[in-house]
This record gives sequence, structure tokens and C-alpha cells, in this order.
Amino acid sequence: MRRDEFKITDPEETESFLHEMTYGVLGTIGEDGWPQLTPLNFAYQNGELYFHGSRIGSKMEQLKSDPRVTFSVSKEYAIIPSTFSDPKLACPATSYFKSVLIKGYAELVVDPELKASALTAFMVKLQPEGGYAPIDPQDPDYTPQIKATAVVRIRITEVSSKFKFGQNLKEPKFSQITEGLQERNRPLDAETIELMKAYCPHYKAQQ
Amino acid sequence: MRRDEFKITDPEETESFLHEMTYGVLGTIGEDGWPQLTPLNFAYQNGELYFHGSRIGSKMEQLKSDPRVTFSVSKEYAIIPSTFSDPKLACPATSYFKSVLIKGYAELVVDPELKASALTAFMVKLQPEGGYAPIDPQDPDYTPQIKATAVVRIRITEVSSKFKFGQNLKEPKFSQITEGLQERNRPLDAETIELMKAYCPHYKAQQ
Repeated sequence: MRRDEFKITDPEETESFLHEMTYGVLGTIGEDGWPQLTPLNFAYQNGELYFHGSRIGSKMEQLKSDPRVTFSVSKEYAIIPSTFSDPKLACPATSYFKSVLIKGYAELVVDPELKASALTAFMVKLQPEGGYAPIDPQDPDYTPQIKATAVVRIRITEVSSKFKFGQNLKEPKFSQITEGLQERNRPLDAETIELMKAYCPHYKAQQ
Repeated sequence: MRRDEFKITDPEETESFLHEMTYGVLGTIGEDGWPQLTPLNFAYQNGELYFHGSRIGSKMEQLKSDPRVTFSVSKEYAIIPSTFSDPKLACPATSYFKSVLIKGYAELVVDPELKASALTAFMVKLQPEGGYAPIDPQDPDYTPQIKATAVVRIRITEVSSKFKFGQNLKEPKFSQITEGLQERNRPLDAETIELMKAYCPHYKAQQ
């Protein structure tokens, strides 16, 4: 990472973001040597990532020969128009976002109990309201379904997080941008202001 | 693509999605041979993709030795809970989304006029309200800024689009899911129902 000011070092902030986000983009090396990208829902459990489904299943042959994967989870919070801080130039236009990059090794999960546990983690995350029978490989309604579902685990070797919320800003630009966001008031703008206040060292030093 | 029913063949639908979305994930082959992913804002102009900024600039050394890139633009519309269509099993839980994958070759843009044109495409897309002077390499306020900004063009060789909105559904599941979405009424749910109606062949055949 080129600029340390945007780096997030608290693992809890990264984990909380991974639990919040429903999907990310899996990067693998394709058979033709090109980077191959697949947007996928995921679950993060006990320090490991899980994917499931036939899409990831069909990738496993290729992942067996090269199990190195990178997974990107990102969320754009706000496009910051140049007008918030410069009356003439377009250059200050930017965007604020959270981005987590994970590197690791992919492996197919074969144990039915572990598959059921990973699929349960998916449901707890994506369907927190419940409304389904516990995923149990002994339940004859689930046994064939669990067998037919490919589950892939990523053994994580590296995590890096970049949250960009104007950490480099000093006054008066910090206030110009928070005021611009407040006035604009798009759905994520209020949250963006809070994140700017939480992460910007110059703002925090003044409190 | 494994399942043709989700494939989008109309280039206008793909282009319209690329113009709507503000960012995607660039996949390259890293120096260490791992897939490397970078979330980036982008502009799509005249059948080519453009990125800018120091983040992409610092990648160019590596991209010179291997210019093959894949770019993923995706949007999740709805998590479909299993309860919409099955009273017991978790298995029908899924998500509806649009996903466009682009393959191509990266090259650094050096001509100031072309850089200015690409940066203008960015601004038109991300700051449609305007409020800045035209980006002109002859304008002394812009000359050094344009020089300092790295602009990368992707010459596109392949585009594939997958829009998943229950195209495989027949009655009564189609109606169960549209009714479930209507009742849930999250921000994108009404739009998801319209997309299901637009793309599902069984629904269209009945109209």
C-alpha cells in the first residue's frame, strides 16, 4: 500500500466490515493465464472465508492446479465532487470507500459436517431472520443437497485494509467536505461524515 | 459461462450498466504471480475503459511486463431468502445481481489531449452536475495536474455479461418470489421485480 494514512490496522474493524458485506470478487489465475474474476457471496468464519455453489465448484479443477486466490471486498461510500473544495479545478474529485484485500489458498471442503457448518454461516449472515430447518447432513431432506453443493474454504495468509475517508485533509478542506456532504445528504453521506471524523487524525487532534 | 439462461447478449444493456456503475475491480497478475485486485473508479468511452490516479500508475511497471487485465463490474440487487419459496429447506436462498466481466490489455495514455479527454469522461460520469473548468492541457492551472496524473486505457478484447434475476423460475415460484420482494420492500426490491419480469422467459411467455 502506497499511502499508510489510509491503512486500517485494527483487525476488528476489518472483521466487522467482512461480516457486514454480502459479496466480494474472487480473483484466481485462469487456465489461459489471465486473471479471472468471480463476484461471489461469502461467509467469514473462524478466520477463514467460505464460498459455495456450482460456480465456485467448476473452478476447483483449476484451483487444484493453482490454489492461490485473492478476494476483494469493497464498498463505495461517497463520490466527493471537486466543487466541495475547489471552485475551478476538477482535480480534487475523488471517492471515499472501504476496501479489504485477502490473499490465501483455496481448498475444497469435503466433510459433510464442515460443509453444513459453512452453509449455516452463510445463512446466519444472509438470512438472519431464519425460517429454515437447521442444516444437518443427517436430515434426509438435506443429505443430497449438501452432497451436491460445492463448498470452498480459503485459508487466509494475508489481509490488508484500506479505508479512505479524507485522512489527509486539514482545515479548511475537512470542514468544506463534511459540510458539502451534509448539504447533499445522499443515503450514505451522514455515515461518511462520521467515518471522516473517526479516521482523520487532524480532526481528532482538534477534539 | 455455465448457464446460458443468465447471459446478456444485448450490448446496449451491458453498456448502460457500465455507464451507471461508478467502480469495479481490476484484476492483474501480480509480480509474485498471484492475482492482484484493485477496486477503482472507471469511465467507459468509445468501447474502451479508462482508469486514472497514482494507484493505477504504480501498477504500470508491472502491467508493462504483463498487460493482461480482467475488470469486474457487479451490483447485487437482492438476497432472496429461502422462505420466499420453501417452508423448510435453506437451499433456495440465493442472490440476484448484474455482473459484467471485461478482458483486455492495459496501456498507459501519454498524449495530454487524450488524457484530458479520458479525465473529462470521468468527470461527466462521476460529477454530472459540473462546476469545474473544462479540462484543457493548455490551461496552465491544469497542465501540471494532467502531467502528474496517470491514465490507463484498457483495449477490450472480450465482454461477458450475466444478469441473474430468476430466469430459471416457473410458476408458482416466480410469483412467490416477486410477492415476497413486494412485501419486503427494501430499496432495490421493486426494481428487482421489474428486472425479473423483463428477463424471465416463462413470465414473458405468459404475457
